[in-house]
Amino acid sequence: MQIAIINGPNLNLLGSRETAIYGNVSFEAYFQQLVERFQAHRLHYFQSNIEGELINEIHRVTHYDAIILNAGAYTHTSIAIADALRAVQCKKIIEVHISNVFAREEYRHHSFISPVCTGVISGFGLDSYRLALEAVLLS
Amino acid sequence: MQIAIINGPNLNLLGSRETAIYGNVSFEAYFQQLVERFQAHRLHYFQSNIEGELINEIHRVTHYDAIILNAGAYTHTSIAIADALRAVQCKKIIEVHISNVFAREEYRHHSFISPVCTGVISGFGLDSYRLALEAVLLS
Amino acid sequence: MQIAIINGPNLNLLGSRETAIYGNVSFEAYFQQLVERFQAHRLHYFQSNIEGELINEIHRVTHYDAIILNAGAYTHTSIAIADALRAVQCKKIIEVHISNVFAREEYRHHSFISPVCTGVISGFGLDSYRLALEAVLLS
Amino acid sequence: MQIAIINGPNLNLLGSRETAIYGNVSFEAYFQQLVERFQAHRLHYFQSNIEGELINEIHRVTHYDAIILNAGAYTHTSIAIADALRAVQCKKIIEVHISNVFAREEYRHHSFISPVCTGVISGFGLDSYRLALEAVLLS
Amino acid sequence: MQIAIINGPNLNLLGSRETAIYGNVSFEAYFQQLVERFQAHRLHYFQSNIEGELINEIHRVTHYDAIILNAGAYTHTSIAIADALRAVQCKKIIEVHISNVFAREEYRHHSFISPVCTGVISGFGLDSYRLALEAVLLS
Amino acid sequence: MQIAIINGPNLNLLGSRETAIYGNVSFEAYFQQLVERFQAHRLHYFQSNIEGELINEIHRVTHYDAIILNAGAYTHTSIAIADALRAVQCKKIIEVHISNVFAREEYRHHSFISPVCTGVISGFGLDSYRLALEAVLLS
Amino acid sequence: MQIAIINGPNLNLLGSRETAIYGNVSFEAYFQQLVERFQAHRLHYFQSNIEGELINEIHRVTHYDAIILNAGAYTHTSIAIADALRAVQCKKIIEVHISNVFAREEYRHHSFISPVCTGVISGFGLDSYRLALEAVLLS
Amino acid sequence: MQIAIINGPNLNLLGSRETAIYGNVSFEAYFQQLVERFQAHRLHYFQSNIEGELINEIHRVTHYDAIILNAGAYTHTSIAIADALRAVQCKKIIEVHISNVFAREEYRHHSFISPVCTGVISGFGLDSYRLALEAVLLS
Amino acid sequence: MQIAIINGPNLNLLGSRETAIYGNVSFEAYFQQLVERFQAHRLHYFQSNIEGELINEIHRVTHYDAIILNAGAYTHTSIAIADALRAVQCKKIIEVHISNVFAREEYRHHSFISPVCTGVISGFGLDSYRLALEAVLLS
Amino acid sequence: MQIAIINGPNLNLLGSRETAIYGNVSFEAYFQQLVERFQAHRLHYFQSNIEGELINEIHRVTHYDAIILNAGAYTHTSIAIADALRAVQCKKIIEVHISNVFAREEYRHHSFISPVCTGVISGFGLDSYRLALEAVLLS
Amino acid sequence: MQIAIINGPNLNLLGSRETAIYGNVSFEAYFQQLVERFQAHRLHYFQSNIEGELINEIHRVTHYDAIILNAGAYTHTSIAIADALRAVQCKKIIEVHISNVFAREEYRHHSFISPVCTGVISGFGLDSYRLALEAVLLS
Amino acid sequence: MQIAIINGPNLNLLGSRETAIYGNVSFEAYFQQLVERFQAHRLHYFQSNIEGELINEIHRVTHYDAIILNAGAYTHTSIAIADALRAVQCKKIIEVHISNVFAREEYRHHSFISPVCTGVISGFGLDSYRLALEAVLLS
Repeated sequence: MQIAIINGPNLNLLGSRETAIYGNVSFEAYFQQLVERFQAHRLHYFQSNIEGELINEIHRVTHYDAIILNAGAYTHTSIAIADALRAVQCKKIIEVHISNVFAREEYRHHSFISPVCTGVISGFGLDSYRLALEAVLLS
Repeated sequence: MQIAIINGPNLNLLGSRETAIYGNVSFEAYFQQLVERFQAHRLHYFQSNIEGELINEIHRVTHYDAIILNAGAYTHTSIAIADALRAVQCKKIIEVHISNVFAREEYRHHSFISPVCTGVISGFGLDSYRLALEAVLLS
Repeated sequence: MQIAIINGPNLNLLGSRETAIYGNVSFEAYFQQLVERFQAHRLHYFQSNIEGELINEIHRVTHYDAIILNAGAYTHTSIAIADALRAVQCKKIIEVHISNVFAREEYRHHSFISPVCTGVISGFGLDSYRLALEAVLLS
Repeated sequence: MQIAIINGPNLNLLGSRETAIYGNVSFEAYFQQLVERFQAHRLHYFQSNIEGELINEIHRVTHYDAIILNAGAYTHTSIAIADALRAVQCKKIIEVHISNVFAREEYRHHSFISPVCTGVISGFGLDSYRLALEAVLLS
Repeated sequence: MQIAIINGPNLNLLGSRETAIYGNVSFEAYFQQLVERFQAHRLHYFQSNIEGELINEIHRVTHYDAIILNAGAYTHTSIAIADALRAVQCKKIIEVHISNVFAREEYRHHSFISPVCTGVISGFGLDSYRLALEAVLLS
Repeated sequence: MQIAIINGPNLNLLGSRETAIYGNVSFEAYFQQLVERFQAHRLHYFQSNIEGELINEIHRVTHYDAIILNAGAYTHTSIAIADALRAVQCKKIIEVHISNVFAREEYRHHSFISPVCTGVISGFGLDSYRLALEAVLLS
Repeated sequence: MQIAIINGPNLNLLGSRETAIYGNVSFEAYFQQLVERFQAHRLHYFQSNIEGELINEIHRVTHYDAIILNAGAYTHTSIAIADALRAVQCKKIIEVHISNVFAREEYRHHSFISPVCTGVISGFGLDSYRLALEAVLLS
Repeated sequence: MQIAIINGPNLNLLGSRETAIYGNVSFEAYFQQLVERFQAHRLHYFQSNIEGELINEIHRVTHYDAIILNAGAYTHTSIAIADALRAVQCKKIIEVHISNVFAREEYRHHSFISPVCTGVISGFGLDSYRLALEAVLLS
Repeated sequence: MQIAIINGPNLNLLGSRETAIYGNVSFEAYFQQLVERFQAHRLHYFQSNIEGELINEIHRVTHYDAIILNAGAYTHTSIAIADALRAVQCKKIIEVHISNVFAREEYRHHSFISPVCTGVISGFGLDSYRLALEAVLLS
Repeated sequence: MQIAIINGPNLNLLGSRETAIYGNVSFEAYFQQLVERFQAHRLHYFQSNIEGELINEIHRVTHYDAIILNAGAYTHTSIAIADALRAVQCKKIIEVHISNVFAREEYRHHSFISPVCTGVISGFGLDSYRLALEAVLLS
Repeated sequence: MQIAIINGPNLNLLGSRETAIYGNVSFEAYFQQLVERFQAHRLHYFQSNIEGELINEIHRVTHYDAIILNAGAYTHTSIAIADALRAVQCKKIIEVHISNVFAREEYRHHSFISPVCTGVISGFGLDSYRLALEAVLLS
Repeated sequence: MQIAIINGPNLNLLGSRETAIYGNVSFEAYFQQLVERFQAHRLHYFQSNIEGELINEIHRVTHYDAIILNAGAYTHTSIAIADALRAVQCKKIIEVHISNVFAREEYRHHSFISPVCTGVISGFGLDSYRLALEAVLLS
């Protein structure tokens, strides 16, 4: 299977900022762990702080088997990313969040993206991505 | 580890109603599969349609390692269940949903329970429970 | 035909409280009148103040021809009862109210149950039930 | 007894449009059936698409024993019709709807008319009118 | 001066309904008193229950010196009447109400018409019209 | 008759500020005109920018025949003034405004005071007070 | 093709009021220009200030090829007109506005009619109608 | 006097959970102190986590002199409990809360129960019950 | 202990107005009863209709042991009084109301003051103050 | 005339996705048809998924005669694009949509862009652009 | 230049309360520093906890060159103060806050005063006043 | 000190558009003046119309002493920029606006950015930046 992991704004800072919350592992290092754990599959990683580049990337991976998307703050404001996902042809789209967004500010409780996803995994730290990969591989 | 799986209203109907959506496996049968897969751990299952009995059960399992809770429709209306979870001593509480609640009616998008949980897993069918168990066992 | 009449919270008080409004006939006595009037059919009566027991009963009568439901105050707050009705197999579900709920407090104007019912009859005193039975028997 | 049945906007189309939903019986034909069934009483029928003519008619039948009113879409927008009903002297006013308005768009869930009616009957097709007539004759 | 008094829905019932509140003088009788009191001016009276006829009348009296308008329940719902007033050429438009609308239901507190009027007089019974006439004649 | 005219915040500036809108007559000068016109009655005038002093004054004139109150901006924010008026024993309370408040900012459309007044007169410049006096003397 | 142009409240004033905004051409004169320009087709024009007569007209032209509707202020308040359009059999319904309603008051931004139309053309002066005709003729 | 103290969901945990906030005295122990202090009266204590059982108990004590009710989280969601209190015949109903609910989450500021109570005592720890008993005995 | 009782707007009228509701005892007379009953403590009484003077008084008694505050209508509108209480050094602040504010108009259900108080006592007539004093003396 | 056509997010997918709705013509191909049809004018086409690049382009074409803008999902969320249009010097700005946005989700009914446009054309498929061009060329 | 600094409710406590946040400098002491720093200008200082006295002072300094106003909690509730500022003749009005009000409770985010000010400076401690003075002196 | 000035969308147009409001000085020219005035410090300037590039720049200057940010229209819509600021390590972040945003459209009154800033300076034209620099240098 070919699977894209796409990260949105500020997630390039993982491992270097607010390490008390997010740990001191960069996402690149974590991604290497995932690649090794799921060797039977082809994982692809992309990050951008620019909403439109996330859309471009979603367009590019339209024929992948699955997209695992952490759109960061764009989750709550971007109808455009949701529309991009609506046009995608891959079988599974999984929304992930590192923190439990539902335990944070009110404006983080609404997601434009959730209604067009297969499912949502939120609150398990970087393991949210690993659980999402397992969810992709199930059935 | 000792882990409680607690199901709320109407989830006793799994396998017998709306089988096109929910499949024709009863939760009891599915639970047996989970027990076998996670033999190293002690899984406990409870279901009730009565809000207060769910609270009683949450009180009873307060010393377990984890609670996996699908509160069904009470997710959206029960401050009392959320308060019960606030008083619990187990390390992880995971909210699960079989369907992707965020793709359904507006009034299913709000959860009183999410803010007191470790994380949320929604939309992966019965596999939401299996992913929740894996999330419990991680780290 | 086999028809269930299900009453929710506080309706056990009919005939003994606020008799100026609700009259001094208990629902049990009224139910006997209905049984006699509709002798050709099998009527079943259930009342509970417990939301979850109403759900249990709805599950139990799933194969009846019709349910006539006065969910009392749970009408306005219970997504769980509405979900139970969604799973039911009987052909007609009729929501009834003794008083005209739309002439009362604002919070009684919304019903979670109405959208999953065949129809609504509200405001005709105990006769709301009789009209509901006639509605079941029509066509 | 002298009873007025008053129909609001677009109800003149019954039997000719959306027959899959509303059937192919015109209201005039259905009204003849009602006249025959309730021969002991004097039924009067009026329809208009004009809000103010509905008000005029309500004024005209003020001394009738009952009004059965399906105000169509004006149900949700007309304070003026509700005010006309407030001034009426007949003993019973019954609001009817052919479809179950509570299962339709949000803006059809609110009625300015319900608070000034004796009761509401909604969702039983043309039989909503027959049930309303029976409700008038009760007690 | 030439002054139009225009009354909206249900105001034709004045003197015959709810006489405890509105008195038992019909508006026609009251209008004769006004004509006598303000003999130096040409008063014109029009009433309709039909929103569009009120608009037609407003168009017709566009060159009058003033309009005194009690739009009844249309006050709260009719953008169309407000638009008609916007296009009128007379120097003063006065909104009047017999009862104090601000002491009644919440939905009677908003007026689409007030913003396009010179002023509002509400709550003085039929004398609201007399005060409005005096307001027209001032300065 | 003994009648109190009470003016709220910023109304002491009449005649000296925004004279294009409010004219260049001070309220004191205008009040002299009213005293002369209504010689048969005892008029009393009070102004304060302090909410609590307006309440004190309302308490003081409780046995007057009428209060004419322009509470200025406190109209929209003061439950306390409305409560003071609720306790007053005079027969008529008339709310007046110089400008048409309903044609101004949204937050000026709501009045805490209107529901406890006999009536409201708004938009006739200083003549709003004169009309209010005539309204007091009527019937 | 047979095409109905239907205008709602206050649009009979075109050419005579607010000519700075709407120009000094009456709609009748403009309609003649349209008839000439689109000689190959049969155009029909109707205007009324009465909501119910607009509904009557919509019913009457149900078999036309297209309706071009400027419902004026009823656009924002009339569920009844929208319902009439829902029952119509013509292939295209086009909502037009002379001014750009979205640049005006907030309450003009919502249309009950738009969801049942093929498309919306707003803001091009009288040319909105000409563009609508061209839209009808396309494909 | 015969007085019922009724506690709702999660209050059975008093003394064992969150002891920093609620202290380490169980309600049963505290109740014994109350019984001793108010020996002249018959105190009755009931607790349940089940909404409907609270309703049953309220029905049962209808002839007591007073009810002191801490409905816990059901305070904010249960119209059914409020309806049960409306039907009760005892002279005083006092709503109590251990913590100051108005200093907590927004959704705890609204109570369906307060409007049907004599009064509310909130924020004095377990002493809220003692103050409520004193309030019952006053006058 | 040194305890301040502070009353807000219109509470100077106690005993003279609306005596059916509030009784015919002035607060001064009632205060004497409190002074006698709680002789061991130094009670201080202050009343003003002026929001800012209430703030001045709160500043003045900052070192007292407790403040018992009935801010009247300012309860619902005054952030400034709440801020004054935030800066106070006394150990207990108790909000009291004579009537049950939660059974009155919607706008009286919200209090800016409650979140900064120890507790709230509402609905016990003048005895609300006596209960508040007992609450101060407890523990 | 020099006219810019600017397309926002996801519109690069036209012709390749959801062809049942949008047809299988790419916008580039359709643009060639427009160029041929409107040979007398200079048409310019730009598309980007990046909000800020759309702003850059709007700045660049400030001296063109007209902008035809389909901002896609940014229509509903971008105050920044609206501000860019506010600063533009071209005479006409036309907002176009391929589908009828008013018949879709609630959050697509609001446009930040409409108030700064000359007009809006929505719902005519790709022909919305052709109609917009004709609208530019009119008068 | 003649410049008034006006402080609203509770700001007289500066230096004595919550010194961790506000520091232990009284405003009077700080004001002396400002007087020295800006010796070329005449600074005037006024503080009151009474809304109406702030209005009186604003009226008094109407001919000053500038007003620097920290209205404290009245910022969020006082339309009356905003109206007073509307009538003022000085060239610059600057709203200041010591803390960053936008980082505090939701109800502190709205200001009735901001729309009538030249500008707003918030969050720089006592230096907000010094920056405001510099803003007055600029150009 | 090292200080970054970051400007968001459309601010590249300063000096060339709407010069009546914004003046005819480009920000680059103004920035040179600032550099000269604050020679003791290292000022850095960045502008972009792309939300994600602003985030990139904020990440880049994380170790600067201060950020002065005018995020333009993104102020009101960008949670992502606010999150970027949350992760920054510089001691002061100052939000500036050229115009007084609180005197403009309602949707410009809310800022996602303010809660994570030290302070806000709004409404002083280009001098808002100079005041912000002075605020950085204070204490």
